[in-house]
Amino acid sequence: MSVPTTQKALIFETNGGPLLYKDIPVPVPKPNELLINVKYSGVCHTDLHAWKGDWPLATKLPLVGGHEGAGVVVAMGENVKGWKVGDYAGVKWLNSSCNSCEFCQTTCEPNCADADLSGYTHDGSFQQYATADAIHAARIPQGTDLAEISPILCAGITVYKALKTANLKAGQWVAISGAAGGLGSLAVQYAKAMGYRVVGIDGGADKAEFAKSLGAEAFVDFLTTKDVVKAVQDITNGGPHGVINVSVSERAMQQSVEYVRSTGTVVLVGLPAGAKVVAPVFESVVKSVNIRGSYVGNRADSAEAIDFFSRGLIKCPIKIVGLSELPEVYELMEQGKILGRYVVDTSK
Amino acid sequence: MSVPTTQKALIFETNGGPLLYKDIPVPVPKPNELLINVKYSGVCHTDLHAWKGDWPLATKLPLVGGHEGAGVVVAMGENVKGWKVGDYAGVKWLNSSCNSCEFCQTTCEPNCADADLSGYTHDGSFQQYATADAIHAARIPQGTDLAEISPILCAGITVYKALKTANLKAGQWVAISGAAGGLGSLAVQYAKAMGYRVVGIDGGADKAEFAKSLGAEAFVDFLTTKDVVKAVQDITNGGPHGVINVSVSERAMQQSVEYVRSTGTVVLVGLPAGAKVVAPVFESVVKSVNIRGSYVGNRADSAEAIDFFSRGLIKCPIKIVGLSELPEVYELMEQGKILGRYVVDTSK
Amino acid sequence: MSVPTTQKALIFETNGGPLLYKDIPVPVPKPNELLINVKYSGVCHTDLHAWKGDWPLATKLPLVGGHEGAGVVVAMGENVKGWKVGDYAGVKWLNSSCNSCEFCQTTCEPNCADADLSGYTHDGSFQQYATADAIHAARIPQGTDLAEISPILCAGITVYKALKTANLKAGQWVAISGAAGGLGSLAVQYAKAMGYRVVGIDGGADKAEFAKSLGAEAFVDFLTTKDVVKAVQDITNGGPHGVINVSVSERAMQQSVEYVRSTGTVVLVGLPAGAKVVAPVFESVVKSVNIRGSYVGNRADSAEAIDFFSRGLIKCPIKIVGLSELPEVYELMEQGKILGRYVVDTSK
Amino acid sequence: MSVPTTQKALIFETNGGPLLYKDIPVPVPKPNELLINVKYSGVCHTDLHAWKGDWPLATKLPLVGGHEGAGVVVAMGENVKGWKVGDYAGVKWLNSSCNSCEFCQTTCEPNCADADLSGYTHDGSFQQYATADAIHAARIPQGTDLAEISPILCAGITVYKALKTANLKAGQWVAISGAAGGLGSLAVQYAKAMGYRVVGIDGGADKAEFAKSLGAEAFVDFLTTKDVVKAVQDITNGGPHGVINVSVSERAMQQSVEYVRSTGTVVLVGLPAGAKVVAPVFESVVKSVNIRGSYVGNRADSAEAIDFFSRGLIKCPIKIVGLSELPEVYELMEQGKILGRYVVDTSK
Repeated sequence: MSVPTTQKALIFETNGGPLLYKDIPVPVPKPNELLINVKYSGVCHTDLHAWKGDWPLATKLPLVGGHEGAGVVVAMGENVKGWKVGDYAGVKWLNSSCNSCEFCQTTCEPNCADADLSGYTHDGSFQQYATADAIHAARIPQGTDLAEISPILCAGITVYKALKTANLKAGQWVAISGAAGGLGSLAVQYAKAMGYRVVGIDGGADKAEFAKSLGAEAFVDFLTTKDVVKAVQDITNGGPHGVINVSVSERAMQQSVEYVRSTGTVVLVGLPAGAKVVAPVFESVVKSVNIRGSYVGNRADSAEAIDFFSRGLIKCPIKIVGLSELPEVYELMEQGKILGRYVVDTSK
Repeated sequence: MSVPTTQKALIFETNGGPLLYKDIPVPVPKPNELLINVKYSGVCHTDLHAWKGDWPLATKLPLVGGHEGAGVVVAMGENVKGWKVGDYAGVKWLNSSCNSCEFCQTTCEPNCADADLSGYTHDGSFQQYATADAIHAARIPQGTDLAEISPILCAGITVYKALKTANLKAGQWVAISGAAGGLGSLAVQYAKAMGYRVVGIDGGADKAEFAKSLGAEAFVDFLTTKDVVKAVQDITNGGPHGVINVSVSERAMQQSVEYVRSTGTVVLVGLPAGAKVVAPVFESVVKSVNIRGSYVGNRADSAEAIDFFSRGLIKCPIKIVGLSELPEVYELMEQGKILGRYVVDTSK
Repeated sequence: MSVPTTQKALIFETNGGPLLYKDIPVPVPKPNELLINVKYSGVCHTDLHAWKGDWPLATKLPLVGGHEGAGVVVAMGENVKGWKVGDYAGVKWLNSSCNSCEFCQTTCEPNCADADLSGYTHDGSFQQYATADAIHAARIPQGTDLAEISPILCAGITVYKALKTANLKAGQWVAISGAAGGLGSLAVQYAKAMGYRVVGIDGGADKAEFAKSLGAEAFVDFLTTKDVVKAVQDITNGGPHGVINVSVSERAMQQSVEYVRSTGTVVLVGLPAGAKVVAPVFESVVKSVNIRGSYVGNRADSAEAIDFFSRGLIKCPIKIVGLSELPEVYELMEQGKILGRYVVDTSK
Repeated sequence: MSVPTTQKALIFETNGGPLLYKDIPVPVPKPNELLINVKYSGVCHTDLHAWKGDWPLATKLPLVGGHEGAGVVVAMGENVKGWKVGDYAGVKWLNSSCNSCEFCQTTCEPNCADADLSGYTHDGSFQQYATADAIHAARIPQGTDLAEISPILCAGITVYKALKTANLKAGQWVAISGAAGGLGSLAVQYAKAMGYRVVGIDGGADKAEFAKSLGAEAFVDFLTTKDVVKAVQDITNGGPHGVINVSVSERAMQQSVEYVRSTGTVVLVGLPAGAKVVAPVFESVVKSVNIRGSYVGNRADSAEAIDFFSRGLIKCPIKIVGLSELPEVYELMEQGKILGRYVVDTSK
């Protein structure tokens, strides 16, 4: 397969600086890396944080963002095993890890201190050709619609992992706080496919309808409900066994600690800069509540999340725009005006 | 066995009101209850909260406190099975529960909404004869020193349960915050018996020595250590896998969320009135931290905690005073001057 | 509610002796028991074993069999809490247990040495009025079709428990060996509701069709498949993660140890008198196979299994006959001619 | 560090053929491999199977056996990260795996279909210089006695993994069948360090004394005990919660299925060629017994097993002989005359 030496990319040189759509060199894969011709890449709220630099973790600079890239393997380093040119592959948030530390040894590779992050510490998927460690790159079945799967590579994996972290049994209730948003709408579908009963929480009648169409059995509208805690507990006959907080509202997180069922689990997923979760000690102890931070999925979580998608159980409505139009998407994200999931076509 | 109709008890009629040492009737066991001649009872900080009424849960009034009573079965209701007069039995915090709800069905009986609590909603062990549900009363091996085992019935069970809640493997590090106190000194010993490596945290050289004598492999003195978080992480090569917060200091709890190892578990045990634990969302998510409230143990936890004691692996230094002297112990507790575990002899 | 003093029952006085449909006294509930007016009762293969006495566990004699009784509470002992006359209740295999041993304390009450078994050591549901311990009796939602739910009370609970014992995650493969039989057809439906992918194994094209109609994604016909092991492994891309053996064929069990995926779990459920499962040590070790016996469900399993039914996720085709016709059903069972699940109407 | 081009090795060209002590070339590490100067190597019963070729898995030929090699890194491939020349490293049974399959992704790398096995499909540690994948090689703390640690690298890891597979809690009983042998004596020590109560089973008064000196709380001598099943159950008050079968006797394995506690776990570890374990279905189901094959440990198990050794909790009495004397050790193994653990010094 012939690989060019230059390519189009969306790049910035300083945090918060201009977002430039321009030609840059095609990267050369290291011995352990794939070179992936990214066809489509989802756009995630994390990309906004990477650009602004408002998280307590420095980005690489200059930086090509993006960590939901779906494409085709076009070359690979000499130590890569088990891949061939033409395979479909995904660029995930976790581009590589040390593969050797206690976290890598125990399936917690996202917690590896040497984790290299796509679109954050490693140039990501907002370019036509990106590199990814062969052990960590996602395997995508041939024939998959690469635009549609791209948001699964971070958003899908993340909510699936969060649901696993809630440690539920089929038939138990899970509340999805922020059910109609990008992450939430995926969470509702994964939860249903895993056999859980879903109560969605979000604001607005259209969101209620949307969440229910995806499989939510009940819905609490925080705009019109006086006592959200009581409403959620009434629906679930005592509180949901698990809560997935994809909403980044601090108030919503506090409420989730209140309405969760005794011995249940509140999962924190979103990463609002500077936010805190506050739990009253007395009630948390007496109710034996669990509060768990869930980061991105590991390699097995990723494969499983993709498998649910491949089996047709997860739909993700996307809007496709050209890579050159990505600066406008950043602007929409910053203004909080984004609806649904944007996916960039790297060929435009 | 002949049972008198009146007995000595320590009773109060209003929260915060006078603590009266006086004669009251011996209670009559219900069909499902044992009548236990309490020989000794430990005194717990919870007894102070019950008296003051500063928890968001009302006490019975008038109330006989106490929930660490060790004694001998002298009578029982007609539906009791599996006990006989003369058996040694313990009055625990959980006097009874409904035995039928989802929590009772799944070993989470302390979370039962109908739980009846000794020395709180049910007259407790600060009397010579107390009643306890036969299914919930602790079985104590014949020949046990009833004074020495009494603190195990709440303090021991509670820290043992907290250690189980930390979900550790043998060989992993656990930090005990408040290691030299009443609960902490028991936690150190249980942790060691469970195969964990213990770093104790407390203030003062005498406390360091005490914690180490009980099995702590390392100690961090918060009075003299500039950066407690760093010190704990250095000793444990990256942070302890679990933390047991028996200290009720909010600051100590916050620190534990910081120094815990990635993917580790912070357990909240103490019940300071009004305290809150605050966790930064970003770090909690990225480190995949677990914060878990641990309440008292269930029946199986209780039996196991007693078994460790009976096998000689747990020592609890106690000071025995007469039941009539109990008001002075309350005063010491209120002044924060108590050292070690007080046990009352109900015959004096 | 007026309760008669005599009733119709199906009773036998010796193992293998005459099955008598006759009048016997209505039992009087003990203090801890409900008296349930059984409306319908499922008929289970275990009832045949109880009658023949071919298991290494003696039955009560004379004996009223049956342990899938669905009815209405008409009276209760004086220590019963949480029930009222008119509630719907179920008579399960586990009529009562000691509630106090290590197994009862840890949700393993079916393993209690003092377990009392309906239709085996305690007169069961083949009578119009049966007694059941109030803590163990199944709660059935008001308005439930009592005929349809009756097979859930043993068959449903048992396969649900077996599926939990297989310790699977949503999205994993489970093989149901004997997929089209009474237990198997329920297992297929529970597995699907729990998010698993099902490969059914049974013999015959009609059975293939039936299993698929219930949710099996694939089917292996052992009558026409040369290499069942290979066929199952091919379909599941390496072997199912779990296997539920409701077939009582020794050969089918051996095959399941062969085709199960590495690190997977083979669950034994059926109780063929005298059968053995033989596992080759070398392969079992190298594949890290788990073989687990699964007995009936505990109280929580029972409530969960009923909840799946109540939510409409489980259908059980039944044939209703009068209690007086039960001897013919025993005969069909003995001849191995039974198809589907028989339910007796105690009023006829 | 200067590395020679030839070295001494113990090699055979056909299964069962002559064991030759001779000069062979020093292997060249692949990009992902370490070259380890093996100082000492333990000798394991598996080495005998590899030589005889009596397992249903073909060996490489000609073959250098050995998979308990402890030594020093002298060179490494260009893609190795995290190691430096001079580090202490161990050659384990699992020399490498694909690092990418579902088993490698989920800590089950010993179950990887592409696992490469030291001393079986990859030349092992019975030579002065051996290669090992850098991700899989064991890290040994500097300063460790390399002769003493060598048996830990297979025997220690294997029994530690088996104990984890038994899924026990501190304070529970574990039976070690074959307690005084090479694997058994390590199992007793690991079990004690993990907080379990050990009943050793073996034959002979000297073995009883030895097992007790290592930490066994009780011992059953199968040579002098009429009813081993009853004896083990009496000591453990109902049967051990777990059983580690390091004995390769079929009869001992059957007995373990009988004496294990209800809901307990029987672990199979040894790999006797052709042996079978037979479990009666009825009893296994009613007792809810678990039978689990446990293969070698994964990377995390290995690091943990070494850590217990490094903390001084595990002692392994060894007999050191020269590599040139290894054929006599094979002969002793074949005659079943071996006592304790032989370790070869590769310099002699």
